[in-house]
Amino acid sequence: MRVDIGNTLDSVADPGLSEDALEALDERVADAHERIERGRADDEFGYTALNLPERADPDAVRWAVEEFDPEAVLTVGIGGSALGAVTLTQALGGDSPVEHYALDNVDPAHTRRVLRDLPLEETVVHAASRSGTTAETLAQFLVVREAMEEAGVDWTEQTVVTTGDEGPLRMLSDRHGLPALDTPVGVPGRFSALSTVGLVPAALQGVDLEGLLAGGQAGADALAGSLHDCPAYAYGAVAQALDERGATTNAMMPYVESLEAFAEWFAQLWAESLGKDGGGQTPVRALGATDQHSQLQLYRAGRRDKLVTFVRPQERPAGPIPETDIDDLAYLGGADLGELLDAEFEATEASLAAAGRPSIRVEIPAVDAHSVGRLLYDMEAACVLAGELQGIETFNQPAVEWGKRAARGLLRGEQTPETELVADKTELVVD
Amino acid sequence: MRVDIGNTLDSVADPGLSEDALEALDERVADAHERIERGRADDEFGYTALNLPERADPDAVRWAVEEFDPEAVLTVGIGGSALGAVTLTQALGGDSPVEHYALDNVDPAHTRRVLRDLPLEETVVHAASRSGTTAETLAQFLVVREAMEEAGVDWTEQTVVTTGDEGPLRMLSDRHGLPALDTPVGVPGRFSALSTVGLVPAALQGVDLEGLLAGGQAGADALAGSLHDCPAYAYGAVAQALDERGATTNAMMPYVESLEAFAEWFAQLWAESLGKDGGGQTPVRALGATDQHSQLQLYRAGRRDKLVTFVRPQERPAGPIPETDIDDLAYLGGADLGELLDAEFEATEASLAAAGRPSIRVEIPAVDAHSVGRLLYDMEAACVLAGELQGIETFNQPAVEWGKRAARGLLRGEQTPETELVADKTELVVD
Repeated sequence: MRVDIGNTLDSVADPGLSEDALEALDERVADAHERIERGRADDEFGYTALNLPERADPDAVRWAVEEFDPEAVLTVGIGGSALGAVTLTQALGGDSPVEHYALDNVDPAHTRRVLRDLPLEETVVHAASRSGTTAETLAQFLVVREAMEEAGVDWTEQTVVTTGDEGPLRMLSDRHGLPALDTPVGVPGRFSALSTVGLVPAALQGVDLEGLLAGGQAGADALAGSLHDCPAYAYGAVAQALDERGATTNAMMPYVESLEAFAEWFAQLWAESLGKDGGGQTPVRALGATDQHSQLQLYRAGRRDKLVTFVRPQERPAGPIPETDIDDLAYLGGADLGELLDAEFEATEASLAAAGRPSIRVEIPAVDAHSVGRLLYDMEAACVLAGELQGIETFNQPAVEWGKRAARGLLRGEQTPETELVADKTELVVD
Repeated sequence: MRVDIGNTLDSVADPGLSEDALEALDERVADAHERIERGRADDEFGYTALNLPERADPDAVRWAVEEFDPEAVLTVGIGGSALGAVTLTQALGGDSPVEHYALDNVDPAHTRRVLRDLPLEETVVHAASRSGTTAETLAQFLVVREAMEEAGVDWTEQTVVTTGDEGPLRMLSDRHGLPALDTPVGVPGRFSALSTVGLVPAALQGVDLEGLLAGGQAGADALAGSLHDCPAYAYGAVAQALDERGATTNAMMPYVESLEAFAEWFAQLWAESLGKDGGGQTPVRALGATDQHSQLQLYRAGRRDKLVTFVRPQERPAGPIPETDIDDLAYLGGADLGELLDAEFEATEASLAAAGRPSIRVEIPAVDAHSVGRLLYDMEAACVLAGELQGIETFNQPAVEWGKRAARGLLRGEQTPETELVADKTELVVD
């Protein structure tokens, strides 16, 4: 992975980093790197996520799925139990004959449409929940199971489970003898893409798991105590330093459609890890070139509170644009869609620099298994580093517990401090 | 449309609005409303967008598409020429036998996959560009046309064009006798969903165009000089007042999957209209309940710079959750997915209020043509109002021109001030 932080220097951008600031930042990176390495060595909660590439067992994943030859795979999970799977399958499974679907919400209309469109007889269900108790995932699983029964399909023959040691999902898999994989111990969901959680649907699509994990391992091998030697830390440190200087929004803008879900995955990683104690950069999901026609006006002329992160592959497949006899379009004919997309990318990057807006360019060789494994690993390492620099607990998410209790209380019809607050909502209605 | 601004009051939230602040705000709304009404009456550029529901001609749209009976419709357009179409077809066409696709980018791999998956013989292409010169759209159109020719399909029999009076797209439609519709005069793309631009694909899906426009008209009829009498202005005014008080991010979070694209449409509307002169709220696209497991931690515990906008339908289709014999899940059995989703919504809303974070609740009766027409119209009116209060030019997007010139220069191999800046990029590479 190649990270170019040139457009974050204060000679280009405001907010921007001076040479002195970079030097001071690098000292903080050295300390944080030591802390991270200690956490990895001791398998501390969260830090151990950065050991996944060498620990993940592609053979176990393939064992769990080898008996299947489906037309579709349906992930039932939410948050970290779905985003990694969606990211990997969108990036790497686009040409697979096996289609990946996800039910990562509990919308009744959407669920009905997905179940209507799926070839249920030829679908493998992957139910994933670390705790095994996630209400949305379990409710969906019950609905999917019933739909399969109603279609005359033996769901127990077409279901794989990824979960922890205990909980309802583990009970289910034990009772029905389903192939079951363990979620990695000590790894929060948002850091679990390169584990069973993300690998199962990728394996069903025939994705090169070894390549993916080798890419992750290359990221692990490149971790080093200076941002000048480690692209992951260069990214994390500079993003964090810009946040401290007022770039409180980070727009993740890949210039490749198959990484659109990656931007969503990044948004979870960044928001849930760093959004704490009144701080944390707000991730915004964007897509080039499409969002030039949507968000660029704001990025270039709005508040100076944004960092834009570009991601692009250095190689793209061919997409020749046919010649045309229309004069105004002659300049397009004979070019390639990828060339046009790259021109748009360079133009947008330069247009932000010309307006003094900071951006970082992340490049990967191509959208292939090795590069995607590296990209995900490096962004995770960048996030852990940013958390160290920010001085927060990167691996928990305490602020979502209140809402979970409230939702459970509402569904159970209980009266609790949370449900009372729901009932006491302050209203000021205009209709 | 029902807007509840109770959770933006300073008795609940910080930043929040006092009674005095609301009163002062309402005086500004009265002035802005007068300005808007003058603009509408004089058909001024942009303001005339708010006249679309009474001007749009559903018969003309149906005339252009009546000869077709396709399996799929493919919109070729970008930005405002695609987002409205995608929003309407996702919200209202989910049960139509006609599938809607969009090529709103120039990614070669993605384009190849879409053309591979489309039943080209049974596909109607809708090429949309207001200027008729958008590079991405025209390049894609040339590629699609060639793919149809190669598949032995007469593309001239299956193409509808929506464009302005002049330009390459108009020339093409004249030369080949294609059914052509006019983009509305004086209406920027991001305000054109309720015109030919958005209506053509919706019509091909059999969406109730009259209902959609009647919903928009209901929004127009409800415009009034006080935020207490007009839900659209209540939304726009309060969002803007919170922006002035530090809520510089606006997370649009519908609790219904079929409005996911609506959140993207809103993000364009908000960013491109208001992101000017160093200001403008940053729109963030979210989706409930999914993003509770991704973004909520940040919204509840990060910086106090966020407003969350919830949108939900008051009616949902049924989605019963089957009973289960697993004790831990008994509370789910017999409930409904929609009930679960609504409980999650109320819990999340209350959890933000409990943490003193402002949110606005927008409710529509259901995800149907009338309600969606109303929702889009009201958000447009809200945006125009916010632009007036912000004191900017709401209807232009000057900051994107530099990049367009640069991209054209790069593709033509010219040396211009822009391409020189692209070539002179400041680099600081870590790899």
